[in-house]
Amino acid sequence: MTTELYPRERLGRVREATARAGLGAVLLTPGPDLRYVTGYDALPLERLTCLVVPASGDAFMMVPRLELPAARESPAGGLGVEFVPWDETDDPFALAAARLPRDVAKVGVADRMWAVMALRFRAALPGAEQVAAGAVLRELRMRKSAAEVAALREAGAAIDRVHRRVPEFLRPGRTEREVGRDIADAIIAEGHEKVDFVIVGSGPNGANPHAELSDREIRPGEPVVVDIGGTMPSGYCSDSTRNYCVGEAPAEYRAYYAVLEEAQRASCEAVRPGATPEAVDAAGRDVIAAAGHGEHFFHRTGHGIGLESHEEPYIVAGNTEPLEPGMAFSIEPGIYPGPHGARIEDIVVCTEDGYEPMNVTERGLVLVG
Amino acid sequence: MTTELYPRERLGRVREATARAGLGAVLLTPGPDLRYVTGYDALPLERLTCLVVPASGDAFMMVPRLELPAARESPAGGLGVEFVPWDETDDPFALAAARLPRDVAKVGVADRMWAVMALRFRAALPGAEQVAAGAVLRELRMRKSAAEVAALREAGAAIDRVHRRVPEFLRPGRTEREVGRDIADAIIAEGHEKVDFVIVGSGPNGANPHAELSDREIRPGEPVVVDIGGTMPSGYCSDSTRNYCVGEAPAEYRAYYAVLEEAQRASCEAVRPGATPEAVDAAGRDVIAAAGHGEHFFHRTGHGIGLESHEEPYIVAGNTEPLEPGMAFSIEPGIYPGPHGARIEDIVVCTEDGYEPMNVTERGLVLVG
Repeated sequence: MTTELYPRERLGRVREATARAGLGAVLLTPGPDLRYVTGYDALPLERLTCLVVPASGDAFMMVPRLELPAARESPAGGLGVEFVPWDETDDPFALAAARLPRDVAKVGVADRMWAVMALRFRAALPGAEQVAAGAVLRELRMRKSAAEVAALREAGAAIDRVHRRVPEFLRPGRTEREVGRDIADAIIAEGHEKVDFVIVGSGPNGANPHAELSDREIRPGEPVVVDIGGTMPSGYCSDSTRNYCVGEAPAEYRAYYAVLEEAQRASCEAVRPGATPEAVDAAGRDVIAAAGHGEHFFHRTGHGIGLESHEEPYIVAGNTEPLEPGMAFSIEPGIYPGPHGARIEDIVVCTEDGYEPMNVTERGLVLVG
Repeated sequence: MTTELYPRERLGRVREATARAGLGAVLLTPGPDLRYVTGYDALPLERLTCLVVPASGDAFMMVPRLELPAARESPAGGLGVEFVPWDETDDPFALAAARLPRDVAKVGVADRMWAVMALRFRAALPGAEQVAAGAVLRELRMRKSAAEVAALREAGAAIDRVHRRVPEFLRPGRTEREVGRDIADAIIAEGHEKVDFVIVGSGPNGANPHAELSDREIRPGEPVVVDIGGTMPSGYCSDSTRNYCVGEAPAEYRAYYAVLEEAQRASCEAVRPGATPEAVDAAGRDVIAAAGHGEHFFHRTGHGIGLESHEEPYIVAGNTEPLEPGMAFSIEPGIYPGPHGARIEDIVVCTEDGYEPMNVTERGLVLVG
C-alpha cells in the first residue's frame, strides 16, 4: 500500500477504469480530476492543458509551450507521461485528436472541463460520443486512501483551530463582514492555502443556510451560525459549522438546538459500511421531524469532500449506493424556524465499523463573552 | 446611452443576438457570461444555477432553493426575470428543458459551463445541438461600454498603485515568494477583491514568461519581471507587467530592453479602429525580429480583458477581425534570451482614433535601492 497522496500507480488505475467503462479515452483539463490523477495543480486557462488517458496505449499531456516549465516542475513531470507542447497558432484539439485511434467511439471529458473546450473536442473527434469522465473517476475518488484521509484530518484540524479562535472575533457591535474578514485571515494563518467560503449568519441571517456576509451588526443574545472552509496546500478541503452566541440565547432556540445536536449525532452514528446515504440522511431527519421541525430542515444532510468542497457521495434522499470505508462527507443537518437558525457540521470518514470525525471541537452552542 | 455597468437592457440585447444567431436559447451558468448579462456574481456550485434566455418568450433562471435569497438580493433580482427554485431531489435540467419549446434545435451553452452540466442539458434536450454561447455573447462583450472602460480604468489605476509600491518590497536577499506575498497583500489593499496572479521572475526565472513564485533569493544586478493582476469588486480585471532591477542591470539586458520598449510602443501605436490584431502583433514583433531577437519572443502579443483576465480579442497572428472602439486588450511583447528576460505590458482600449492606455506607470526599467 502506498503512503503517497498522489501515487504514481493512479494513472494505471484510471486507464483500467477507462477500458472497463468502454471508453476510448478520458480527457482531463485543469481541475480536481487532473490533480487527482497527476498531482498537477494546473491553472484553468483559455490555452488547453489536457491529460489524455487512452484505454490502450500511452497517456500524453497537451501543454501550451508557455506552461511547459510549470508542468515539468509539477508532480506530473515525474509520471513518465509524454508532454506535447503546442504553439500559439496551433490547434491543440486537432493535435490531440490526431494522436488517438481514428475509430474512438466514446470519450470521457473531465466533469469541470469548460463547455467551450468540450465542444472543440467534439468538433475534433466528430465520431466520439462524450460522457462525463466522473463516471470513471468517481469510483476511485470516492474511496479515499489512507494518505487522503490523513490530508482530510489535517484540513479538519486546521479549520478546528479557526473555530477555536472565533470567540476572539465575535463581539457585539461588530458586523458579520468584520468578523468574516478576521476568520478569513485565520483560515490562511492556520495553514490553508485558499479560503473557500465564510458564512457568518447572525440572528435572522442564520435562518438562511447560504447567507452572504452582510454589514449587519451582531447583537447580544443573537445566535450566530459560522460555516467555514478552505483548501490546504495538499489540495484537500475543510468544512465545519459551529454555532455561537454573545451572551444568553433565547429559550426556544436552546430547545431546538438540543434536537439538532441529537439529530446530527444520529446521522453520524448511522454511518457504517453498507449503510445508504439516504438512511444516514433519514436518521437525523427523523429526529428533527419527530420534534415537529421537519419543515425547518429543507436541505440534504451532506456532501462528499476531498479535492473539491462538494463532491460525491451526496447524503440525500434517493442516494442508495452503499457507503464504503474511506468515503468522506459532511453531516450537517440544520433547523431554521426563524428569526434565527442553527446547523452543526462535521466531516466524517466511513471506517471499517463506523465513522471517524475530522472535526472535534465542541458541538454545543458556544457562549461568547 | 446608459452609464450603468450592468444595464437592464443587456438582457434584451442577448435575446436579440440569440435569435439572430439562429439559436433557440442560451443557457448561462455562473461565470463571466452570467455576470455580464445580469450582474449576478453567482458561485459556481454543483447545484445548477442557470439563466435561460430563449430567442422568443421570457427569460427565466433556475435557482437552487438554498441560493434563492442570494439570487434575489443580487442585481439579477431587479431584472424582472422569473426565478424558478428547485429542491434537493428535483432534476433542474429536466425542469428547465420542460419550459423550452419542444422543437428547439440549437442552444448556446456558456463557454465556461462545466462539461458535466452541458452533458446533463444534452440528455434533457436530446434534439438540441449545443454550440458555445460565446459565439453570441462575444459580439457584445468585446465592445466595452463607457461604464466598462471606466471600470477597466479604475482597475488599471489600482494595479498601477501596486507597481509603484514594488520597490518597497524588492530587496536583495528576499525570495520571490516573500516579495510575491507582499504584492498579493498590496493588490487587495489597493482595492481589488481577488488576486488573480503574481509573477515575480528574477534572473533566469524572468526568461520563463509564466514562472511560478519560487524560493529563489533575488540578487543585486538581476532583472526581475513583475506581472500582476486582480479582479475589482466591479468584476473587471487588471493586468500589468513592469521590470525592476536591484542596482545596475547587465549591459546586454539594457540593450534588448531598449528594443522591447520600442516594440511595445510600436504595437500600441498600431491600435486603431480597422487595424487587425495580427497587424498589432506584427508591429512589435517586427521591431524585435529586426534587432535579431525574433526567436526570443515566442508568445502572442496580447489578450482581451474585461470580466475575464483573458478573453477575446486575442492579439495574435491569424486574427484578422478588425479592431473597433471599446475593444480592450493587453499589449505585452517580451524578449527572453536568457539568463534573464523582460516583458512590458499595458492594457489598452481602442478609441475612435487610436488607443488609451489603462496603465501609466514608467515603462522603463525601474532601478531599486
